[in-house]
Amino acid sequence: MPDLSALIAALPDGTVVTDPDILAGYRQDRAADPDAGTPLAVVRPRTTEDVQLTVRWCADHAVPVITRGAGTSLSGGATAVDGALMLSTERMRDIAVDPATRTAVCQPGLLNAEVKAAVAEHGLWYPPDPSSYEICTIGGNAATNAGGLCCVKYGVTTDYVLGLQVVLADGRALRLGGKQLKDSAGLPLTKLFVGSEGLLGIITEVTVRLLPPQAPACTVVGSFATVGDASRAVLAVTAQIRPAMLEFMDSVSINAVEDMLHMDLDRDAGALLVAQSDAPGPAGRAEVEIIERAFREHRATEVFATDDPDEGAAFTAARRAAIPAVERLGSLLLEDVGVPLTELPALIDGVAAIAEKHRVMISVIAHAGDGNTHPLIVFDPDDRDEAARAQNAFGEIMDLAIAMGGTITGEHGVGRLKKGWLPDQVGDDVMALTATLKAALDPQGLLNPGVLL
Amino acid sequence: MPDLSALIAALPDGTVVTDPDILAGYRQDRAADPDAGTPLAVVRPRTTEDVQLTVRWCADHAVPVITRGAGTSLSGGATAVDGALMLSTERMRDIAVDPATRTAVCQPGLLNAEVKAAVAEHGLWYPPDPSSYEICTIGGNAATNAGGLCCVKYGVTTDYVLGLQVVLADGRALRLGGKQLKDSAGLPLTKLFVGSEGLLGIITEVTVRLLPPQAPACTVVGSFATVGDASRAVLAVTAQIRPAMLEFMDSVSINAVEDMLHMDLDRDAGALLVAQSDAPGPAGRAEVEIIERAFREHRATEVFATDDPDEGAAFTAARRAAIPAVERLGSLLLEDVGVPLTELPALIDGVAAIAEKHRVMISVIAHAGDGNTHPLIVFDPDDRDEAARAQNAFGEIMDLAIAMGGTITGEHGVGRLKKGWLPDQVGDDVMALTATLKAALDPQGLLNPGVLL
Repeated sequence: MPDLSALIAALPDGTVVTDPDILAGYRQDRAADPDAGTPLAVVRPRTTEDVQLTVRWCADHAVPVITRGAGTSLSGGATAVDGALMLSTERMRDIAVDPATRTAVCQPGLLNAEVKAAVAEHGLWYPPDPSSYEICTIGGNAATNAGGLCCVKYGVTTDYVLGLQVVLADGRALRLGGKQLKDSAGLPLTKLFVGSEGLLGIITEVTVRLLPPQAPACTVVGSFATVGDASRAVLAVTAQIRPAMLEFMDSVSINAVEDMLHMDLDRDAGALLVAQSDAPGPAGRAEVEIIERAFREHRATEVFATDDPDEGAAFTAARRAAIPAVERLGSLLLEDVGVPLTELPALIDGVAAIAEKHRVMISVIAHAGDGNTHPLIVFDPDDRDEAARAQNAFGEIMDLAIAMGGTITGEHGVGRLKKGWLPDQVGDDVMALTATLKAALDPQGLLNPGVLL
Repeated sequence: MPDLSALIAALPDGTVVTDPDILAGYRQDRAADPDAGTPLAVVRPRTTEDVQLTVRWCADHAVPVITRGAGTSLSGGATAVDGALMLSTERMRDIAVDPATRTAVCQPGLLNAEVKAAVAEHGLWYPPDPSSYEICTIGGNAATNAGGLCCVKYGVTTDYVLGLQVVLADGRALRLGGKQLKDSAGLPLTKLFVGSEGLLGIITEVTVRLLPPQAPACTVVGSFATVGDASRAVLAVTAQIRPAMLEFMDSVSINAVEDMLHMDLDRDAGALLVAQSDAPGPAGRAEVEIIERAFREHRATEVFATDDPDEGAAFTAARRAAIPAVERLGSLLLEDVGVPLTELPALIDGVAAIAEKHRVMISVIAHAGDGNTHPLIVFDPDDRDEAARAQNAFGEIMDLAIAMGGTITGEHGVGRLKKGWLPDQVGDDVMALTATLKAALDPQGLLNPGVLL
């Protein structure tokens, strides 16, 4: 085991933690991999310089380093590996909002919700909104190119990152991009690091672009007898307008959320759609009418529209609560497959067939408006046979998405859980290029080993 | 000189051109570099396979290859090098629009305007709109991450590229991304190639995301006595709303356009701003009022607002005509510097000081709303002294932008003309990483040599 004393001495007191009880809390992320390793130590730097110092120590001692934000990865992107350093950004929490250029410079350990709140004080809006926005960090969002509910209209994290500070595997710190909205100078390196899942460098600062506040949204909720009706209604909406949100819940998730939140959701519905329009004035009313008509034409059993922000927020909260609610039914394997929008009904049907074949419960929730679905495979981890069937279903859902020209991950990243399927999606040449880039930037292979490759 | 016969034989008849008279037309791009070389041959493939074959021949014979769309590069990105193959995408002109997924798969040789027209037939909109949109290609747009007038609200080319086909330096063809709106599977390679200026691979297909048609825009035109008033009015607008367009012209460009188009522009104005709002209904009217008020509060001598699309289009056309109009006054060195928005007034003042110091005429036009300016340095190429002074001014404007935390190129790319300034902007470590990536992907250095590095 490498001697940590030089690292401990070089960093401020309390930065390096080796207490086994504390280390235990850094082994797993939300993917809850039972095979997670135990880190050598947890390092909690406050500055880019401390990250550089840590990475240089790792390079000198050939110790792998895994960067962890809040540990909310659903694909094992921040799972510990035996003997690696766990670099936690939890103490890197500064933010400087610049209303004049509509940008904010954030340290990576801030929660997404904290970024939203800090910029809202200046009357500004940071759009990306993963369902986990209250518990996930902006650094993790950048590392995974996180999505969310408003992506369907407002895009994903990479669309809002103007600049980064990144520490490379050899400890050099780069400044990429900045506050200017347009910058074509040199290779698009900022974009290369956003979504690189910690493989190429460690993000120590994120400069995000902000928007004026979102206009108040109108919400339309539709209940449908079948998932097929609901998924076809999605296409009918998106063929006409770009809603600000278009979310899908199936019967299992509706009932799980109702059990948890008691908000009078329609327990008999086969599927629920929650749509929003934030177009102002008459344009918004026109969009609401288009959504209502599309829902009715696809046999919605009930359609409810409201311009009351609190009512709208309650339905959004219901959708956001779906994963924790379904989690109460058993352990989850969380899917994140996406398809070109027209394939959405076929994907949802296909997932149902896979559930039947493998005799597992699969609840489907989806950012339906952009074709990104989260089939949640529920299983009892103590039932070995069921756990194996769940694992098979997990793989077959990815196979199905790939066959439909889709992706194995729309927004969570490949992490450690999905890397077995990545070559099937992208092909051997893309995998070879990925390995070439990894070798060029991290020749010792110390940054987040086991992810992607 | 390498023997072309194997290449000529392998490609369809007429693909390889060696006629010196034709080759002469492929030496320069719009940067009009007098030191442009002469290509060995021009290759005009129709398919990705033909591009692969060409690139493999180049790799086998160590012959550099320069990819050229319509040759509208303003920074020498498509200037010929002696002995290189010029790979022209002019015959790669297919497009397949998929209204259901709101995407279009384009071959690179289509003009931006042709993409816009093809998708408009399906009631859809491809937003990016370089001023040269009628004469530049979608492939060149992707290679340079081109901008335009609507970027201020709608973003740049990379924001619309969902997928690419790319031929690497060894002839392998990769498919990256696709029609799905969200895709976090693997490194963000699509984003790495958009804006890579032909250094890393040759783009042979671009899958773009489309939007519903833009709502009819209202246009507000303001005349100002001074450029300072106008540039401060820009900040007053962007502090409150996100206009769909916010363009700046100075006195020289106003008069040059008026000389060319005779459209009754105010010849006495020191500067003109052309703003648009495409927010629908009352929201649009509110935005127009905010713009009008901001203009008046910053001492606009005249403010004119119209919701007539033809009138609006006339002013947009005036702005688009500025570069060709000023070009009639002499040869141009075209700048493309950008700064964080708050620095815009100081940048414009600084450019005026540089013009005075070097005794050259510099006309400033700008995509003011996103801080991206085009100082146009006018000089007589037969006057050696003036040409040298123009060249000095060109460099000092970049120095100024860098000192302000800005960029030497907002949307045109670095090409061959600006590479001397790139290290000053991005630093040695970023240059080293750029060289590392180039070496990893193109170890022979055959793709667009002389650009960036």
